[in-house]
Amino acid sequence: MSTINLKQLAERLNLSISTVSKALNDSHEIGAETKKRVRALAHKLNYEPNPHASSLRRNRSNTIGVILPEVANNFFSLAINGIEEVARENGYHVLIYLTHDSYRREVDIVQHLVGGRIDGLLMSVSSESQDFAHLTDLNNRGVPIVFFDRVCEQIDTAQVTTDDCRSGYLATQHLIEAGCRRIAYLLISDNLSIGRKRRQGYQDALRDAGLTDDPALILHGSSDHAANVTAIRNLLEQDPGIDGIFASVEHLAISTYQACESIGRRIPEQVKVVGFSNLAVAALLAPALTTVTQPAYNIGVEAARILFKAIKKNKPVSAAQSVELKSELIPRMSTNSLS
Amino acid sequence: MSTINLKQLAERLNLSISTVSKALNDSHEIGAETKKRVRALAHKLNYEPNPHASSLRRNRSNTIGVILPEVANNFFSLAINGIEEVARENGYHVLIYLTHDSYRREVDIVQHLVGGRIDGLLMSVSSESQDFAHLTDLNNRGVPIVFFDRVCEQIDTAQVTTDDCRSGYLATQHLIEAGCRRIAYLLISDNLSIGRKRRQGYQDALRDAGLTDDPALILHGSSDHAANVTAIRNLLEQDPGIDGIFASVEHLAISTYQACESIGRRIPEQVKVVGFSNLAVAALLAPALTTVTQPAYNIGVEAARILFKAIKKNKPVSAAQSVELKSELIPRMSTNSLS
Repeated sequence: MSTINLKQLAERLNLSISTVSKALNDSHEIGAETKKRVRALAHKLNYEPNPHASSLRRNRSNTIGVILPEVANNFFSLAINGIEEVARENGYHVLIYLTHDSYRREVDIVQHLVGGRIDGLLMSVSSESQDFAHLTDLNNRGVPIVFFDRVCEQIDTAQVTTDDCRSGYLATQHLIEAGCRRIAYLLISDNLSIGRKRRQGYQDALRDAGLTDDPALILHGSSDHAANVTAIRNLLEQDPGIDGIFASVEHLAISTYQACESIGRRIPEQVKVVGFSNLAVAALLAPALTTVTQPAYNIGVEAARILFKAIKKNKPVSAAQSVELKSELIPRMSTNSLS
Repeated sequence: MSTINLKQLAERLNLSISTVSKALNDSHEIGAETKKRVRALAHKLNYEPNPHASSLRRNRSNTIGVILPEVANNFFSLAINGIEEVARENGYHVLIYLTHDSYRREVDIVQHLVGGRIDGLLMSVSSESQDFAHLTDLNNRGVPIVFFDRVCEQIDTAQVTTDDCRSGYLATQHLIEAGCRRIAYLLISDNLSIGRKRRQGYQDALRDAGLTDDPALILHGSSDHAANVTAIRNLLEQDPGIDGIFASVEHLAISTYQACESIGRRIPEQVKVVGFSNLAVAALLAPALTTVTQPAYNIGVEAARILFKAIKKNKPVSAAQSVELKSELIPRMSTNSLS
């Protein structure tokens, strides 16, 4: 297919470049008949606007960005599906960028987006991030941002989250009711709002049950799976009294299974396990994993809807538009509950 | 942070816009001292080039695109990690686009990329795609394309694949050696090269063992998980002699487990299962799943390396650069092999 530019298209139509451009951009200055004629020939000759030039003129990219830590986590792959559904309804493209939980990469990506590549941003922050100047800068340049799941409290915008504190409470209470008295809490970063809130729920549940909140029971994991398995194994070996584990992110629940298997610690007989997870195969694991499951797809849908409202109306996003959705505790065999 | 444009920067430096632009783009026409002065002030005043204007000038986006069917499949999330590693080494950004296995979306995305948004494309085609005019067009416009895993044979470029035919043979042979005589083959599309090659291996193994290749044993799944579970359950109920299942894509192996559970068919006693999978939890399933595991991360690395060679040298990719990597059969309990 050969390429025809705006000038050539105008020549063929015997119209000025400006008229053709306005017709293609559906300007009210151009009559319906002319628009029809221009579009028909543009279509026939396969005219493609230069996206950079076109973005300069219209100042719209018809693209939103999504910045995420990773896609191996099932929560994020489901949330992306929700975001893409809403973007498709709005005729928008979705660019996905991954930070791999690195602050440096996050800053790099956001700087790459400055200057009109995207009309809006959906974001779940990296667990390393503590300074958010890069996001403040983007937001100040008029790019609306909506956070989901892993939010940044320092920026005045909407957040779509789940009831993390209550979920942490319910998961811990569930372990206590199953007979656990010494419950470890696994998280990946104290920087993340979700980690802090889930931990708060865990501590509240322990206190309400008259159990001690022992700092030795808190384990900080990372994105290094092998290192996590080793750390959990060491914790279980050094503290044989641990009879319950609450993994606040999906991959730490999997690491817990691997650690238990490697030292012959039986789930649920010797140690009971609850994990935050959207893993499709949670019910097929040996034993089936009790999960706190977030409405991941709907989180993506809600966050995208708020963002598109701002883009379409050309208005900033307000913190008052924030939404909190409910997670669900699904008891299975890993806490000795009915499968 | 306020924004300063090229004109304002030039005024402050008492230089022409053209000189400042050339200095920032490291032109040989500008002396080292001037470059240093321009860069220092640009840095101090936080000057950001307009990415659209800048791309028009340089004709480089420093961005590659990756088009994939989905990210819920662990193969793709691992391949992305390999691609991003190589892109980072080359100082490039990676844009990820998902087709959700829809031909219409794939065409839409590729048309969006026409005209300089990306310097190169890595792609795994949608299972619906049979017409590849959109890709021919992109390639003719000078955007190098490298296919990985799900390739398009009609375009003359490099492919990074695994030994799908041999892997299909080994998986089927493994089921036969485990005692299976009536083995169903599950795939998602005959359009995909991987589906055809794995099926060829399956048929060759049956023939070499003197078993009949019965078309009634071929089941075509889709991206609808619930529908797949129902279809597999129906197949097992209508044909009780089936004693082995070979799932040629990851999610069909999971659907097989769910279908067997729903009708009380025991794995591996009544039916043995092998699946293509990069699922991290394959070994933790009940029973542990025997897998053909592809070197997903390395596939991403190899495909990206070929693409960057073309971008950096400004040369087209040749089919002779194609690479075939080896997959690995990992026997586990679902075929009654040692875990």
